[in-house]
Amino acid sequence: MSGESAFLESLRALAHHPAARGFLDDAAVLEVGGETLVLTHDMLIEGVHFLPSQSRADVAWKLVATNLSDLAAKGAEPLGVLLGYMLGDDEPGFMTGLAEVLAHYGVPLLGGDTVSGGPPQALGLTAIGRATHRPVPSRAGARPGDTLWVTGELGRAMLGFEALRDGTGGDPQAYLRPMARLGEGRALAPLVTAMMDVSDGLLLDAWRMAEASQVSLALDSTAVPIAAPEPRRLDALRWGDDYELLFTLPAGAEPPVAATRIGSAEPRGFVPLFLDGEPIAHHDGLGWEH
Amino acid sequence: MSGESAFLESLRALAHHPAARGFLDDAAVLEVGGETLVLTHDMLIEGVHFLPSQSRADVAWKLVATNLSDLAAKGAEPLGVLLGYMLGDDEPGFMTGLAEVLAHYGVPLLGGDTVSGGPPQALGLTAIGRATHRPVPSRAGARPGDTLWVTGELGRAMLGFEALRDGTGGDPQAYLRPMARLGEGRALAPLVTAMMDVSDGLLLDAWRMAEASQVSLALDSTAVPIAAPEPRRLDALRWGDDYELLFTLPAGAEPPVAATRIGSAEPRGFVPLFLDGEPIAHHDGLGWEH
Repeated sequence: MSGESAFLESLRALAHHPAARGFLDDAAVLEVGGETLVLTHDMLIEGVHFLPSQSRADVAWKLVATNLSDLAAKGAEPLGVLLGYMLGDDEPGFMTGLAEVLAHYGVPLLGGDTVSGGPPQALGLTAIGRATHRPVPSRAGARPGDTLWVTGELGRAMLGFEALRDGTGGDPQAYLRPMARLGEGRALAPLVTAMMDVSDGLLLDAWRMAEASQVSLALDSTAVPIAAPEPRRLDALRWGDDYELLFTLPAGAEPPVAATRIGSAEPRGFVPLFLDGEPIAHHDGLGWEH
Repeated sequence: MSGESAFLESLRALAHHPAARGFLDDAAVLEVGGETLVLTHDMLIEGVHFLPSQSRADVAWKLVATNLSDLAAKGAEPLGVLLGYMLGDDEPGFMTGLAEVLAHYGVPLLGGDTVSGGPPQALGLTAIGRATHRPVPSRAGARPGDTLWVTGELGRAMLGFEALRDGTGGDPQAYLRPMARLGEGRALAPLVTAMMDVSDGLLLDAWRMAEASQVSLALDSTAVPIAAPEPRRLDALRWGDDYELLFTLPAGAEPPVAATRIGSAEPRGFVPLFLDGEPIAHHDGLGWEH
């Protein structure tokens, strides 16, 4: 175990409080006054999560949308966000993107902090939501016999990133301004046995769901809807940033939103993930680990 | 107006939502399910808020305690914290200090994010609390005729910092590991007309309370209890990091906790602050502005 992962393990151990159902991997769930809150905090760092040259309006959008995606995977309705903002390049641009994404989702900016420092510019966002269904879906609830589904098409963010990088004239919007599936998450929350958003790549996130649920997930790669050309299928399954919802349903149940069945949950075998029948023995290379 | 302050003004304007009573200067207040939540997010940046050489155990303590101090000023009971952690130097040290401060205050770590990046190392913390008294105290409620009070002694953090900087052998604890006045805040919340914590210097924070309340505050500098030698009195009144509570009470009311009367609120005059009868016309030099 590396020093970093030992540190993460000790953080997770510290967070093993009855109020905390997940830590670092997952949104936190907190019971307050008859309501169940869902809380998530993500940081974006210049040079790691965005390029110095990237539009700060797009960075603001992504900062908010990725946190709201964590709420979507819990079926939660956003109540507000707190912003941690390091003063840096293009404040008016950041402001524009922030106003746009908050207006788009109808979410208020509640407060936060501004600091000097950097480069690199460091940004943080805390999103607070109200659970619309209890128990709140987790990634740990998949059971053998469940069916495995995903919303939307994968690889859209990958194509967007490549269009941006290569200047091909393709549309980078899916990469720059991801959408949080809040409506789908709320519709699915009462029905799913497990749910999470696909932020780091379908294969890696499916691996994590299988590990958390102590099942094996059998995934049919050809069933996965992809936005990319066929030769890029496996790339699309490993690329993150699409923020689609990955979920399991009891056998025979149909999702109330547009989604595609891509596999099933099985009793825990010797590996957490089978891709087209082949065992995947290690999570290296399945997605973006950070 | 500088570019930075124009940006802050636009952030504040964006935050003018019924759910948000304060932004950036102040904790946010949110009504959820019959409870009133108090939410605060602060960032600490290496080289700005702490030195690269500083013990990360102390940094972890300060990160948590300063956010809890914001809850204390609202009379709120902490429910948990979310950590935004940039991997950097001395993870085990950070972990030790984090465990110590959370155990000291009995506050759970609910979740958060870890990222790579830096230097400088950037850290963020969100604290969530439950209001124990409503309406939640704000800095905007002081009225002419109120008396002005402060808990504890000022200048302890200043002496601690100087002991550390100069290697005089003095005790740096008050600077390194500030205490949040949570018990005092809860006891005061039902009685105060305005309350805030002294994070950036008594004079600057009193100026801000006067501005928010649209009164003038008349402060008797010799009445303020200081931990420093008499010739350093004004320094102690301008130094931040003490995290004492500054509050106003209706005339004739006595505080239920140890505190000292240091002045009174008057109808708004031509300046927000009078120090020993002298008008203070500008907030430059009154404390730490960042």
